[in-house]
Order: sequence, then C-alpha cells, then structure tokens
Amino acid sequence: MQNTLYYPKVSLKDEDIFNAIKQERDSIGYYSLAFCETQELKSKLDSLNFKQNKIAIIGIGGSTLGTYAIYNFLKYHKQNNQTLKKEILFFESTDPVNLNGTISQLDLEDTLFIIISKSGTTIETISIFKYLSSIVDMNKDNLLVITEYDSKLNSFAKTNNLITFEIPKNVGGRFSVLSNVGLVPLYLAGFDIDELLRGARYISTSFFEQNSLYDTILKKARTYYEYKDIYNINAVFSYSQLLEGFNKWYVQLWGESLGKIDINNANQGLTPIGLLGPVDQHSFLQLIVEGKRDKSVTFIKIKDFKDDTKISSISLEALEELDYINNIDFKELINLQADATIASVKEYQKDIPIDIIEIEEISEYEIGKLLFYYELLTSVVGQFLRIDTYNQPGVEGGKIILKELLKSKK
Amino acid sequence: MQNTLYYPKVSLKDEDIFNAIKQERDSIGYYSLAFCETQELKSKLDSLNFKQNKIAIIGIGGSTLGTYAIYNFLKYHKQNNQTLKKEILFFESTDPVNLNGTISQLDLEDTLFIIISKSGTTIETISIFKYLSSIVDMNKDNLLVITEYDSKLNSFAKTNNLITFEIPKNVGGRFSVLSNVGLVPLYLAGFDIDELLRGARYISTSFFEQNSLYDTILKKARTYYEYKDIYNINAVFSYSQLLEGFNKWYVQLWGESLGKIDINNANQGLTPIGLLGPVDQHSFLQLIVEGKRDKSVTFIKIKDFKDDTKISSISLEALEELDYINNIDFKELINLQADATIASVKEYQKDIPIDIIEIEEISEYEIGKLLFYYELLTSVVGQFLRIDTYNQPGVEGGKIILKELLKSKK
Repeated sequence: MQNTLYYPKVSLKDEDIFNAIKQERDSIGYYSLAFCETQELKSKLDSLNFKQNKIAIIGIGGSTLGTYAIYNFLKYHKQNNQTLKKEILFFESTDPVNLNGTISQLDLEDTLFIIISKSGTTIETISIFKYLSSIVDMNKDNLLVITEYDSKLNSFAKTNNLITFEIPKNVGGRFSVLSNVGLVPLYLAGFDIDELLRGARYISTSFFEQNSLYDTILKKARTYYEYKDIYNINAVFSYSQLLEGFNKWYVQLWGESLGKIDINNANQGLTPIGLLGPVDQHSFLQLIVEGKRDKSVTFIKIKDFKDDTKISSISLEALEELDYINNIDFKELINLQADATIASVKEYQKDIPIDIIEIEEISEYEIGKLLFYYELLTSVVGQFLRIDTYNQPGVEGGKIILKELLKSKK
Repeated sequence: MQNTLYYPKVSLKDEDIFNAIKQERDSIGYYSLAFCETQELKSKLDSLNFKQNKIAIIGIGGSTLGTYAIYNFLKYHKQNNQTLKKEILFFESTDPVNLNGTISQLDLEDTLFIIISKSGTTIETISIFKYLSSIVDMNKDNLLVITEYDSKLNSFAKTNNLITFEIPKNVGGRFSVLSNVGLVPLYLAGFDIDELLRGARYISTSFFEQNSLYDTILKKARTYYEYKDIYNINAVFSYSQLLEGFNKWYVQLWGESLGKIDINNANQGLTPIGLLGPVDQHSFLQLIVEGKRDKSVTFIKIKDFKDDTKISSISLEALEELDYINNIDFKELINLQADATIASVKEYQKDIPIDIIEIEEISEYEIGKLLFYYELLTSVVGQFLRIDTYNQPGVEGGKIILKELLKSKK
C-alpha cells in the first residue's frame, strides 16, 4: 500500500527553524534595526532644538507600547540622575474622559506633539489629532510626524512643512520600538538610544552566532510549542513596577504575533499574561499555585536596583515579631520575595514550567536586551507554530464594520 | 451488581446552587456589607476634619484594588464637577525605585496616611510603613489604621492612640471594597459612599429575590463551569480607560477566588484577563479572533460618558477620506468601536462565547452595581466548581520561605 501525504512540508529540527529565521531577516525589518546608525538622527533632532518640557505622543498599540515600556523602566532612574529632559505622556484612547484628563496634565503651549501611525490613517490617532489641533495651534515648531514614507499622513505632513521621520515598510508596529517610533521620542526625552541598540545587538549576535542564547531560545520556544495545548497561557511575572510597561508590550507582541490561523487552517495562539511582583502575589499567585495546570511562568528579576533605601530599624509596639525585616534594603527584599515565590512554585508544584530572566540593572543597555530577546523568541515560536508572525488579519473585520457604522451616521 | 459511590454529595441544580449561596450569607461577610448603615462612619470621619490635600494608602492586594477601581472610575468625573476633596495615591510595592517615585509625588506634610492590612502583619505594608515613619512623623493627626479588631497592628494603633477602623473577620480582602477598607478613603476623598452601597443593594436584592439578574448570573456561571476545560480563560474587555482599575480588581477577585483545589482534590481555575478598548484592539484582539478557542469575552460599555467632546470638523489635506469621523462625539466613537468589535467577533467567530454588560453612566451607583455583580458571580461560579471561594492557601508556602530567607540574613 501507499499513503501519499498532502501536508505542507515542515521541519521542526533546530537547524531548520534556525535557517528559516535567518531567511526571514531578508524580508522582516526588525532584525536589522539593532544595527542602524543613529548619528544622522541624533544630529537632526539636536538641530531642531525643541524647548518644550513635555512630549505628548498621539498613537496607539505598536506606536506607543515600546516607548512606554522603555520610558516606564528608566524614568525614575533618570530623574534621580537629573538627565530626564522631557516627560512623556501618551494619547492612546478615544475615551473622552480619559482624553480630557490627559490634556489637563499638560501645558499645551509647552508640549511637543509627536503623531505616530504606521499606516497613517489609524482612526484613534487621527481623531485625537483633529481634536487637539482645534485647541492648540500645531505646526513644525511643536509637531513631529512618524509614519511610512508613502502614507497619507506623510502627504499631509509634507503639505504643511512638518518634520517627518520614516517607519520602514517591513517593520511591523509591534516590532518597531527600535525604529524611529521609539528612538525619536526617547532621544528627545534624554535617553541613550545607542545603548538601547547595543543591548539589542548583543542579543542578536549571540543568537545568530549560535552562542549561549541560541540553545536557550530554541529550547524555550520548542517547549512552548510542544506543550501548547496543555500550557496555553504564558505568564510573565516581573518583580518590579518598572516593568509594567514591558509587560504590556509583551502582551501585544506575544498575543498579536502568535494568535493566528496556521498553514493547516487551525487556530493557534498562546495567551500572554503580565504580572507584577510582589503586588500580584496578592492576586494571581493563588491561581498559579492551586489552579489548573495551564500556565508556564517566566520570572523576571532586576539584580541590582542601585537604590539603597532601607527598611528602617524601628521596633513597633506589638509588632516586634516583624523586627526581622529591619535594616533590610528594599532592593534585597523584593528579590527575596521573588526567590521565595519561585522556590515555592518550583519545590511544591513540579508540573508548572518556570524559567527565570535576570536583568543586571536599570539601564538602556539592559532593556534593549530584554526587548530584543522577546522579539526573537516570538519569531522562533512563530516558526514552530507555522504561522505568519508578522500580520494581523483578525482585526480588519471590526475596522470595516466601524467605518460602515460611522458613515451611516452621516 | 451494585456500584457504591464514595463521591462527595453534590447537586448542580439551579435551586441547590442558589440555596448554597443563601446559606453562605450567614458566614461570609461581604453579602451584608451592602446593607450596612454609614451614618456613624461618616460622622466620625467628618468630626476628624482632616485638612490634608492628599491621601496615601499603604496596603496591597485586597486592601487597595477595590478602592483603586472606584477611584480610577470616578476621579476625572469628580474633578470636572470640582468635588474631589483629596487625591489618592497608593503605596503597594516593595520596589525601591517605585517607592521613592511615589514619595516624590507627595508633599509628606500635606498627606493623610491610611495603613490597611487585614491580618495586620502584611510584610510589604509594614515594611513601607516603617520606612515612611522614618521620614515623616506619623501620629493620630495624619494616620488612620484599618485592620481586624484583634490584629497586632490594631494593638500597635491602640498603644499609640491612633484612630482605627475595623475590617470584619468574615470579610476577605478581595471582597472587602464595600467595608471600611474602601469606604473610609473614598468618603474622605469626596465620593458618595451611600450611592456605592445602593448600587450593591440593587444587585443583591435583584438576585436574592430571583428577579431578572438571577437567571443571568446562574446561566453565566453555569456556562463558565460546564465549558471550563475548553474556555479556561475569561477576558473582560472594558471600553473605557476608567475601568482599568476595575479590570485589575476583577483579575484578583476571579483568579484568587477560583484558582483552587476542589473537593475531589483536582486543580480548578478559570484565568481572568483584563483588556481595555479601544487600545487593546491593537494588541490582544487578534489573539481573540484568530487564536485558539480557549477564551470567553465579556464586553463592558459605558452607555453615556456625559462628555460632549467632539472630533473637530477639520479636513486634513491628503486625509480627506477620514472626514467621515468629523463632528462625531468621542463618547459615541468609543461605543461604536465596541459595537464594531462585538459584531465582528459575534458574526464571524461563532465559537467564542461573548456577553455584554452596559453601564448607564459614570457614577458611584453604577460602579457599586458592577463590583457587587462580579462578587456575586464569583461566589456562584465557586459553588459550581465545588471549591472554597474565600480562602487562599496557595500563597502561604512562599510567605514561609520568605520569612526563612529574611531571618537567615540576620
């Protein structure tokens, strides 16, 4: 007898997955962002010499999440070192109460606006931009535009002599943090964008030269893939409030990249969850420990917060039993809390796959590494899942219906 | 032949579930909070006559999430009506950079501190309290204590002549928002706590008198239960940034209540996810639409934002095709975005269970309803799952390890 297979040709050998990723580099733009020169961009931005104290980014999704992740991670650290040049705020939502609330935090005359939209016709972004332009005069002195070179927003900018920065066609929104989307506002706010890129390059080189990270990423991605129907949820448990933005960025990257119909027409999708320690020890941890075995957990720790705030050596009447926390650094406490949670999950709950990522310190270099590491991991999992990691056809249906609903109002 | 069953006695008939819930009311305290008198509490707080402009709550998990949910929902609305008496900030995390960042937003001399811990020995809360007391003098004029009547924190407060408010023994942290935990800071900040409770009473009465909500809650809970191994993820997709706090509160309530070992010693657990529209249309929506069929989705809409901010009637050169959004109210746009997303999921993806909750307006009464509705729903799902909805034994292991780690440092 003979059994002829009409399945697509697929190999899940490590070297074939690796070769597929190497091939992707020719067409998928984010891989090369880490290797871009920044001198020209920095000179251009320096010469513009914007004096405003705040930046308001008008954008949504991939146009803001990466910048927010980096800003959220580094903001307080920069403030302490007094080199944060401009505070950044975000206009993302069409919620009118939130919109006016954000406006109330700004002196509109002292704000540099940056409108970011890859397609140039994002409905939330243009709606908010129209409203803001009705209450503050926007021109080349207080408005930058970041979009694709041939978008209608770019034509609008050119017509009005606005300064523009390009988003490359082959860089998707959720992979665009190291393009102008992130680099322009972050440089203006006073962050070291070269260090960001150096971190990303470190990860890229280590993976593509098949150094230590190569094995880790391949093994991790393969585990997610092989156990995807058991562990369909991938929680990231970050032990620092500074990683709240990273968590949100991760949720978009993972969810929108990996939630896809695969080449066999099956619905695939690993569900990302972002948790913050120790706060979520008092929320989600119970579900991890005693709940259904459907989650993997990645713990993220910051090795050195470079902050020496200590728990004071005060003995409180009736609470003397807690004196064992006296004189401990908070940076040590939070990491011991992480260690204790990890140990309790690892020891007693052997059917929960866990891994640990340790970040050395709070710096551009380290967050650049973390972001690029997750981009690469997402790409490799996408290869295992046999999906197109870089499109998002599932959100088009709603956009078409919205347009119809809005037009029918006229 | 004979087959003797040693299974626990269980009935999943609607009336038996309902009777079990009615029985719970005798021992589980949150059910009666909606019916408490507030006159005494309000008089006491009025007579204290605190002049500080800000409130800083020191607490974590159930001690803060409910208050944050309500504050986040109503804050901007109150600000517009100029009746927000005090801004509220939260000290939750042991992250030192975040701790100092929060302090930098406060004038410590103009801050009323409220320390909230049910057990009275929450390590994060006491650590932060010790640190804050080393940098600002705390006494009965700027510090309130909310805890159980026999906790060690209560003894500390009595020794120091501090003003205390009790958390009833039989009210769990994550069900405590309508106890002193939420009512004290919210009343001081200027919110109408009677309206909160009236909303909760409306839901309670409607359910226990088996009016319209009875069928809805039973049917919803039964569906979650019966399909728990297919749809193990329950996403709440809230179309307003004002529900960000509610989402976080929901995640704790759902995760910590329902992630349990059941009476047959099996791991149970429905995984909560909080999403915000329209922002997460650009993030998580792709995963809902094309990803694995493992999610139910509850859409939450605010019918009337009572805000007339409009998209200006400006035609932008090259972007004229978007003129169809001109002159639309933002409050209408965001609801049309919700409708479009709902329609696209409902029409094209028939294997995704969805439901819609509509909130009439931004008010104490409406958020009181929503919170109590979810508490009740959680209790009913817990009955179906045959678990103890109200404990959290899974987080104890980590606490013991942490204590050992800290003591070994000495």
